[in-house]
Amino acid sequence: MRNRYFSHDSAHNRAAMALYESVADLPLVCPHGHVDAQIFADPDYQFGSPVDLLIIPDHYIFRMLYSQGVALHDLGIAPLPGESAPQDHRAIWQRVCDNWHLFRATPTGIWLRDELADVFDIKLKLNSVNAMAIYDAIEDKLGSPAFRPRALYERFNIEALATTDAAADTLEQHQAIRASGWGGRVIPTFRPDALVNIDAPGWRENINRLSEVSGVIVTDYGSYIQALEQRREFFKTMGATATDHAALTAWTEALSDAGAEAIFQRALSGGATAKDAARFTGHMLVEMARMSSEDGLVMQLHIGSWRNHNPQLYARYGRDMGADIPIRSEFTKNLKALLDRFGNRRDMTLVLFNLDETTYSRELAPLAGHYPLLRLGPPWWFFDSWLGMKRFLDDVVETAGIYNLAGFNDDTRAYPSIPSRHDVWRRVCADWLAGQLLRGFIDDEDAFEMIRALAYDLAKQTYRLDD
Amino acid sequence: MRNRYFSHDSAHNRAAMALYESVADLPLVCPHGHVDAQIFADPDYQFGSPVDLLIIPDHYIFRMLYSQGVALHDLGIAPLPGESAPQDHRAIWQRVCDNWHLFRATPTGIWLRDELADVFDIKLKLNSVNAMAIYDAIEDKLGSPAFRPRALYERFNIEALATTDAAADTLEQHQAIRASGWGGRVIPTFRPDALVNIDAPGWRENINRLSEVSGVIVTDYGSYIQALEQRREFFKTMGATATDHAALTAWTEALSDAGAEAIFQRALSGGATAKDAARFTGHMLVEMARMSSEDGLVMQLHIGSWRNHNPQLYARYGRDMGADIPIRSEFTKNLKALLDRFGNRRDMTLVLFNLDETTYSRELAPLAGHYPLLRLGPPWWFFDSWLGMKRFLDDVVETAGIYNLAGFNDDTRAYPSIPSRHDVWRRVCADWLAGQLLRGFIDDEDAFEMIRALAYDLAKQTYRLDD
Amino acid sequence: MRNRYFSHDSAHNRAAMALYESVADLPLVCPHGHVDAQIFADPDYQFGSPVDLLIIPDHYIFRMLYSQGVALHDLGIAPLPGESAPQDHRAIWQRVCDNWHLFRATPTGIWLRDELADVFDIKLKLNSVNAMAIYDAIEDKLGSPAFRPRALYERFNIEALATTDAAADTLEQHQAIRASGWGGRVIPTFRPDALVNIDAPGWRENINRLSEVSGVIVTDYGSYIQALEQRREFFKTMGATATDHAALTAWTEALSDAGAEAIFQRALSGGATAKDAARFTGHMLVEMARMSSEDGLVMQLHIGSWRNHNPQLYARYGRDMGADIPIRSEFTKNLKALLDRFGNRRDMTLVLFNLDETTYSRELAPLAGHYPLLRLGPPWWFFDSWLGMKRFLDDVVETAGIYNLAGFNDDTRAYPSIPSRHDVWRRVCADWLAGQLLRGFIDDEDAFEMIRALAYDLAKQTYRLDD
Repeated sequence: MRNRYFSHDSAHNRAAMALYESVADLPLVCPHGHVDAQIFADPDYQFGSPVDLLIIPDHYIFRMLYSQGVALHDLGIAPLPGESAPQDHRAIWQRVCDNWHLFRATPTGIWLRDELADVFDIKLKLNSVNAMAIYDAIEDKLGSPAFRPRALYERFNIEALATTDAAADTLEQHQAIRASGWGGRVIPTFRPDALVNIDAPGWRENINRLSEVSGVIVTDYGSYIQALEQRREFFKTMGATATDHAALTAWTEALSDAGAEAIFQRALSGGATAKDAARFTGHMLVEMARMSSEDGLVMQLHIGSWRNHNPQLYARYGRDMGADIPIRSEFTKNLKALLDRFGNRRDMTLVLFNLDETTYSRELAPLAGHYPLLRLGPPWWFFDSWLGMKRFLDDVVETAGIYNLAGFNDDTRAYPSIPSRHDVWRRVCADWLAGQLLRGFIDDEDAFEMIRALAYDLAKQTYRLDD
Repeated sequence: MRNRYFSHDSAHNRAAMALYESVADLPLVCPHGHVDAQIFADPDYQFGSPVDLLIIPDHYIFRMLYSQGVALHDLGIAPLPGESAPQDHRAIWQRVCDNWHLFRATPTGIWLRDELADVFDIKLKLNSVNAMAIYDAIEDKLGSPAFRPRALYERFNIEALATTDAAADTLEQHQAIRASGWGGRVIPTFRPDALVNIDAPGWRENINRLSEVSGVIVTDYGSYIQALEQRREFFKTMGATATDHAALTAWTEALSDAGAEAIFQRALSGGATAKDAARFTGHMLVEMARMSSEDGLVMQLHIGSWRNHNPQLYARYGRDMGADIPIRSEFTKNLKALLDRFGNRRDMTLVLFNLDETTYSRELAPLAGHYPLLRLGPPWWFFDSWLGMKRFLDDVVETAGIYNLAGFNDDTRAYPSIPSRHDVWRRVCADWLAGQLLRGFIDDEDAFEMIRALAYDLAKQTYRLDD
Repeated sequence: MRNRYFSHDSAHNRAAMALYESVADLPLVCPHGHVDAQIFADPDYQFGSPVDLLIIPDHYIFRMLYSQGVALHDLGIAPLPGESAPQDHRAIWQRVCDNWHLFRATPTGIWLRDELADVFDIKLKLNSVNAMAIYDAIEDKLGSPAFRPRALYERFNIEALATTDAAADTLEQHQAIRASGWGGRVIPTFRPDALVNIDAPGWRENINRLSEVSGVIVTDYGSYIQALEQRREFFKTMGATATDHAALTAWTEALSDAGAEAIFQRALSGGATAKDAARFTGHMLVEMARMSSEDGLVMQLHIGSWRNHNPQLYARYGRDMGADIPIRSEFTKNLKALLDRFGNRRDMTLVLFNLDETTYSRELAPLAGHYPLLRLGPPWWFFDSWLGMKRFLDDVVETAGIYNLAGFNDDTRAYPSIPSRHDVWRRVCADWLAGQLLRGFIDDEDAFEMIRALAYDLAKQTYRLDD
C-alpha cells in the first residue's frame, strides 16, 4: 500500500502522504554502506540463490533465528576455516520461512516484505506454506538481466553509493567500475580501523601491507602518518568524499609526537598494552580530524559496539555473526580533545553514530546544536527502525534542529534492501512532520522543505556529494 | 468499562478490543510473585480488615503517602521490634482515602480501582466521602466464603501460581497445600540470595540453617555447593520450575574452586570484604547457571534495586518500606562470564529483569535477540504500569521480537490485585498491537497470534509450566 | 490559534482545550529565573533594539546559528574584553531571519513566534522577506510605555517573579523596587555557588566580598558558615523564599568540621585540589540543607551541565555562549549523604533539576515518590520543550504522581518570553491530561484538579509563595 506505516488517522495520513509523495521519487543518496563494489565491477554479475542473496550475508536475519535455537550451520553459514555448509538452499529457505513469525514487528521483517513486493513483485506472505513458491519466484527473477546490480542501480534511482574500504585496499573493483565507462557513481570510503587500532587482529601485517600499497616504508610514527596521508589522497582520486572510523568508545586524546611514537614503537614490537591501544585510537581520531581539516574528507565515527561478544561463535564462524552487542556511550568528555582543536571549524564535518539512545538528547543534540563541526548520523543498526527513527527525531530535533543532521544512510550490505530502507526513513520523516504540522508547530512551507532536506539534501550536502 | 485504557480513536479502539477479547478469558499464568503460600494452605484462611488486606502489606501504596508527609505509623505499620501500630483501621482507611488524589494517573491507583470494581463489585470512587461506605462493602465481602483465597484462585482463573521462597525454607505450607488434595497449582521458587550474598544480614545463621535443612554439614565451599544442590532438588520435588536471584548489579565472574573457597572461608570467619561479597555473588550466579544446566530449573535475575536506601526508616520499620531506589544497570560487560559459558545453550533459560529502562534497547534486546539462553522479563516494579509497558514494547520488540520475551508476571504480594495486573498487561499489549496493525506493520493473523503469546503462551513456555 | 499544539483529534482537542481554558487566565508564578532585577528597579526602563532584547542575550538563539556557521560577532555579541560588536542591528536582525529555518520544530522557534504574536501583536512569519517589517514593528512597540517592564508585569499577569542572585550581592535593585512602592512581587534567590565551589574563578575575591557585605570577617570555616548564614538571613528579609545551587554532579558528603576546615584552609591558601573542590561542594550541599532546615528556605539543585565546554569561545566571549553541554547524572548514590540527614523532613523542600532524562524514571521519580524532602523541578533547559515536557510527564507521574512535582518555572533571562513559556507548559499538561482522561485513567474531576495544580498551585506551594 502506498500509504503504509502512516498513522491511520485520516488527516494525519493525508498530510503524511502528501509529504511523502513530494520526495518519493527523489534519487537515493547512499553515502555510507557495505555493498561490495565487486557487484558493480562486473557488468554481468549475477546474484546466487535466494539464500545466497538474502540469508547467508545478513546477520540481522540469522541472529534472530539463532536466538530461538536455529543453528547457524542450518542456515547455510560455513564454519571456519573452510568446513562446508549445507548446500540445500531450498531446505534452508523453508527453515527460515517456518520461523518467519519471529520477525513480526521487526524492521528486518518489514524490509524483506517490502523488498519482495517492490523489487521482486512478490506479494505473498512469508510462511511455511508459501516458502517454495516465493523461492521459485525470487530465483526466477534473479536469472533475468533486469536483476543485474547495475540494472537495479538504475531502477533504484541511486544517485551515489559509497562503499566502505580498508585503507590499504587498492580499490581494484572501483578502478574497474571507472574503467568500464558505466555511469553509476560508486565511490569508496576510507576506513583505517585495521591500521589505527593497534590491537586489531593482524595489525602488524596490515602495516606491512600499508607500506606496500602506499610506497612509504612504515618504520616509525612519522612514516606511518605519511603513508596514511598517501592512502587518503589515493582514495580521493578514486572519488572518496569521506572516511569512516569505528571504535569502542568516543575517547579522543592528542598525544605529543613523542608519545605517539613511543606507543607506535611498542605496537611494532608487539609490546603495546590495552591502554596503549585505547590511547592510540583516541589520538588517531584527532589526527584523522587534522588530516580532514587539510584534505576535506568528511569524517564519520561509529562507536559503542562490543564486537564478537560470543567467543564460541567467533571461534567457529568468525566476525559479523549477529553477536555484536551495544554498550553505554559518552561524548561530552570523550570528544573534548578533538572538539577543542576542530569543533569550531565551519569547513569540516564530523558525523557521529552510536548505539546508546540516551546520548541523543543528553549529549549529541546539544553538541551538534553548538559545534559547527558536528552533524548527527541517522539512527544506527538496531535503531534503523520505525520506532528507532521516531525516537531519534523526538529526541534530537528540538535541540539540534534538522539542519545539524546528516540525513539518511542505509549502512547495508544487503543491496536489494536499499530502496526499502530509504523508504522507511522517508515515511517516518513524513509521518513525524505531519504530526508537527497538525499540531501547528510548523506550517506547510516548513514541512515540505524539511522532508526534502531529510530525504535528500542533507545527505548530499553533508557528504559533499553535491559537487 | 470493557474497553477501558485503549486509545479512544474508534478504529484503534475496535482493533484493540477485538485482540483483548480474544485473550480476556485465558487463564492467568503467575510464574513469579510474592503471595504467601500460607493463604492457600489453610482452606478457611480469611483476610483481615480492608486495611490488613490492602494497605499494611503494600509498599506501593504507603511509599506515596509517606512521600507527602503521612507517617507510616498512621497507616498501621508497626515499628520494630514489636511496638504496636494504631488499631483503628477505619481511621486509617479514611486517612488513605483523604489522600487518594496522590494516586491519580498511577498504576497503584488504577489497580485498586479495578480490583474494587472487578473483585469486590464496588464502583465508588475512592475519596473522603466514600471512604466508609467502601470500607464497609469490602469488609462485608471479606467475610464471605467466596473471598477465601482458594475460592478466589478459581474465580481468578489462575492456572499456576509460583511463590518465592528462601532456599533454606522447608516449604511446609506447600506441603500442606499438596497434602490437602486441593487442585490449585501453587508452586515454590528457589531463592538463595540469603545464602549466596555473603553480606546479607544473618548470613552465618542462614548457613547453619542450610546445614540443618539439607542434611549436608556446610564447612567449606564444596559442602556449601552440595547443600544448595540438595535444596534445589527438594524444591523440584515440590513442583518448583524456577529459581530467582536478586543482586545489586549483573556482575558475573567464574572464580576458580580455590578462589571461591578462599572467599567462602573468609565469609565463614566473618572476615569477608565488600569486594569479596560482590565477587562471590557474581561467581554464584555462574554456578547457579551451571546447576540450572543440569537440573533444568529456569533462572531469573532481578538486579538494580538499592534496597533500604533510607536508614532511619529501615532502623525503625525494617525492609520493604517503599525505600528501595533503582540504580543504573549494565549487562553487556557484566553478564559476559555467564554468557561465555551458557549463552549458547538452547535447553536453558535465564530471564532478566532490571529497573533501568535505558538497558532495554541498548543491551537487553540485542542480547536476547542473539543468545538462545536469554529471555526478557516484563517491565518490573515501577515499570509495571501502562506507560512503562508501552515503553518496554516500543524499545525491545523491534530488536528482539516478542518470542524472546517471557510474557507477563505480576510479581505481587497483593493477591487480590492479580487479575487487575494481568488485565493491564493484556490491555497494553492489545493496544500496542492494534497500533502495529493499523499502521500495517503486522496483519490480523500476526496480531492475534502475538496477543495470545504475550498474554499466555510465553509465560507458560518460558517457565516450563506446560508439562 | 487558541487551540494550538493540541492533538488535532477532535475529542482530544476539545478535552485539552477545556482543561487549558480552565487555567489559561491564572496568574503566572515564576519562582526560578534569570531576569535582571534592574528592569523593574527603574520605572521607566526601556529595552534597547529588537536585537538587544531578543538576540544578544539569548544563547538558545545564537548557539543554533553558531552551529551552522554564523559567527557570534556577526550577531552583535561583543568579544572580551571590550572589543566592540557590530552596531548595525538591522543587518543582524536580517541575518537572523535569513537563517530562521534552523529553528523549525524547536522550542526557541515556537517561543519567539508566540511571543511576537501574543506580546507584540505581530503575526508575520520570521523569514528573509518579513525581516525588516518585523523589526520595525517590534521597535515601534518597544518605544511605547506599554512595553516598560513593569507594565508588562501587569499585562503578563505575573503573581511573583524570583531572580537569581549571587550570595554576596547587596540586592540594591531589589531594595530599589521595594522602596519604589510598586506592587509587583519581585524577589531574590540566594545562589552561593561562587562561594561554595572553591574552584570557581575568582573564589578568593568572592570570599573577600562575602566578608565585606556580611560584616563577618571570613578567616576559617566557622566564620565562613556564619557569613553565609548572615547572607541567607538578609535575602530572607528581602523576600527570598529559596536558594539555588549548581554543581557538576549531585555528589553530597558530610565532612567533619575538621575535614571541612582543612579543605577550606587549603582553598584560602590556593592549595586546594580538584578532589577537594568536589568534596567541599558536596559537603556544602549538606550544610546548605542544614541551614534550610533552620531558616525554611526552599533548596534548589541544578546539576549536570559541563559549563564552557568550548575553550576557544570561552576565551574570546566568556560564559553563557551556548557552549554548555550536559553530562550523565546520578542521584541514588550521590544524594545519599544529604537524604540520610534530611530526606525524612516534611517541613523542608529540595527541588531537583538535571539534564539527563534517563534519571527521570530510574531515580528521580522513585526518590520523590518516597522521600518527603524531595520535589522534582520541571524539565530543564534543552528539555523545556513540548516533547521534553511530554517525556517528563510520561516518565515520572506513574511513579511519583503529580503532587511530588514542583510545577513549572521558566528559568529564563528573556523576560518577554515568559508568557509563551508558561503557555507551552500549560498546553502540554492539558494535552497530556486529556490523553489520560480519554483513556479512562482519570476522570474529569481528577483532570481539572490536576491541571490547576500543574499550572499554578504546585509552584506556589513548593516555593512557599502562598503566604
